[in-house]
Amino acid sequence: MATSSAMSTVLGLLLAIIFVCTPGLVLSGELTTAEVMAAVSPSDWRSPEPGNLIYMQLPQGVVVMELAPGFAPKNVANLKTLVRERYFDGLAIIRSQDNYVVQWGDPAEDEEKARSIGSASATAAAEFFLAADETEISAIDSRDAYADIVGFADGFPAGSDGERSWLTHCYGMVGVARGSELDSGNGSSLYVITGHAPRHLDRNITLAGRVISGIEQLTTLARGTGPLGFYETAAEQTPIVSLRMGDDVAAEDQWDIEILRTDTAAFADYVKSRTFRHEEWFVDPTGRIDICNINPPVRVAK
Amino acid sequence: MATSSAMSTVLGLLLAIIFVCTPGLVLSGELTTAEVMAAVSPSDWRSPEPGNLIYMQLPQGVVVMELAPGFAPKNVANLKTLVRERYFDGLAIIRSQDNYVVQWGDPAEDEEKARSIGSASATAAAEFFLAADETEISAIDSRDAYADIVGFADGFPAGSDGERSWLTHCYGMVGVARGSELDSGNGSSLYVITGHAPRHLDRNITLAGRVISGIEQLTTLARGTGPLGFYETAAEQTPIVSLRMGDDVAAEDQWDIEILRTDTAAFADYVKSRTFRHEEWFVDPTGRIDICNINPPVRVAK
Repeated sequence: MATSSAMSTVLGLLLAIIFVCTPGLVLSGELTTAEVMAAVSPSDWRSPEPGNLIYMQLPQGVVVMELAPGFAPKNVANLKTLVRERYFDGLAIIRSQDNYVVQWGDPAEDEEKARSIGSASATAAAEFFLAADETEISAIDSRDAYADIVGFADGFPAGSDGERSWLTHCYGMVGVARGSELDSGNGSSLYVITGHAPRHLDRNITLAGRVISGIEQLTTLARGTGPLGFYETAAEQTPIVSLRMGDDVAAEDQWDIEILRTDTAAFADYVKSRTFRHEEWFVDPTGRIDICNINPPVRVAK
Repeated sequence: MATSSAMSTVLGLLLAIIFVCTPGLVLSGELTTAEVMAAVSPSDWRSPEPGNLIYMQLPQGVVVMELAPGFAPKNVANLKTLVRERYFDGLAIIRSQDNYVVQWGDPAEDEEKARSIGSASATAAAEFFLAADETEISAIDSRDAYADIVGFADGFPAGSDGERSWLTHCYGMVGVARGSELDSGNGSSLYVITGHAPRHLDRNITLAGRVISGIEQLTTLARGTGPLGFYETAAEQTPIVSLRMGDDVAAEDQWDIEILRTDTAAFADYVKSRTFRHEEWFVDPTGRIDICNINPPVRVAK
């Protein structure tokens, strides 16, 4: 994210000062985030597969999402079909509800003039959770309000009760909108979490990925004034120029994206540094953390 | 908030349908939020004191904040002095960091041309927490990541460890920016939480109130591209037309604001309805809640 890299710059400067002035801090094992990030090695980063990335071109800029086929294989497959067949090009962002979600799709979805979904399926099975043994969560030490176990799986925030595991509705997570029928979502309308994590949605709707760059293109949109933040007129909607799978983007236009792995010792150090806050500003470092306050660092070169 | 009232409208319609079709739901005691809200009585609402409200006039609209003198008496008093002496008029919003904060104050704060703070104090004591017996928290049933006890005090979200009680950094909370010295905040620069609750700030900085209307005027601002989301040029900043204490606003311009009390049986029912989610859409109502996912309903007539 833009803010992460900006913060990294500042923290890097702070690190330089701290390291020069008080090298003992480093030896104590009580590392700040800047110190942890300065120590990560190239192998602590991963490059997401281009075939799992969606580039969303809006008039004001680009949003990049990483998909989570490990948790929602059927929904992700249907979504990829829609993207590859250019279903979304020319559709619109239809909703922005403050402290909740931004949503896009076909404004004419329920009308005669609705766009054909082509060879995609009209419905996709509910993929609200996996059996716990179908995925591996790198657990963090957190007393979570909603889940007995929380951590990261496939690089995404996840929760578990020991029997079922699911992706958690943290800021930036991308979900498959549905109506009242559980399989009524098919990927043709997606939402992004843009406020405090609405974790009560966990296990009630399919999450399919996360925004990894450009979320500010969505979060700064004017809020819709209709019920639930839907825009009341077409003029208020933001047109979608295009959605493209990363491997359909010309090589020279693909971004060089790296995300900190979430299953490494370096990431555990990162989480620890976010939990204990050894930066000098903090007078009462909490020693506690919420899964949605951990945002795996992203590096983007455009 | 605008979204709450919009949602109320929709939920009200849903309620009408549910109530007509399935009156048994009401008798079961398993109430939806719409059902709870339809049953609250006039005495379940409170009208905040105009002398505890700040009206912030921006070019694009108005933001209204309610102050929390019970938790931060010295900082609130200093802030009121600044507002009444019109310190903020013509200053600017200087920072918007995605998923974190919007902040305003004097862009020239550290320069020769900085505006005088008039008769306000240059520093205000750190008011990061109270002794637990200095306030009363109406506790909710929640397993909180950051605090042993959470609930509401004076209408604001709060946490406690049994010895100390403090306001929690939920979405919309307003804080007093500070430097590295604990008493370096004086109210001349304020921030509003605009993302997932950064609860690690709890007990590290003084919270002084909450935005109760118009937060979308702040959350939709373009993000700053400088370190920590600060704007890099004056042109990117949003000018502040004025800040006024509510009782300095002409009577005909004051808004009729009501907030659901947080120490009533009706509010307990409201929290229960947000915890168990009996709306038909939910297939797996969580039965759990996070303090920052409870936003006491606000009714505004302008």
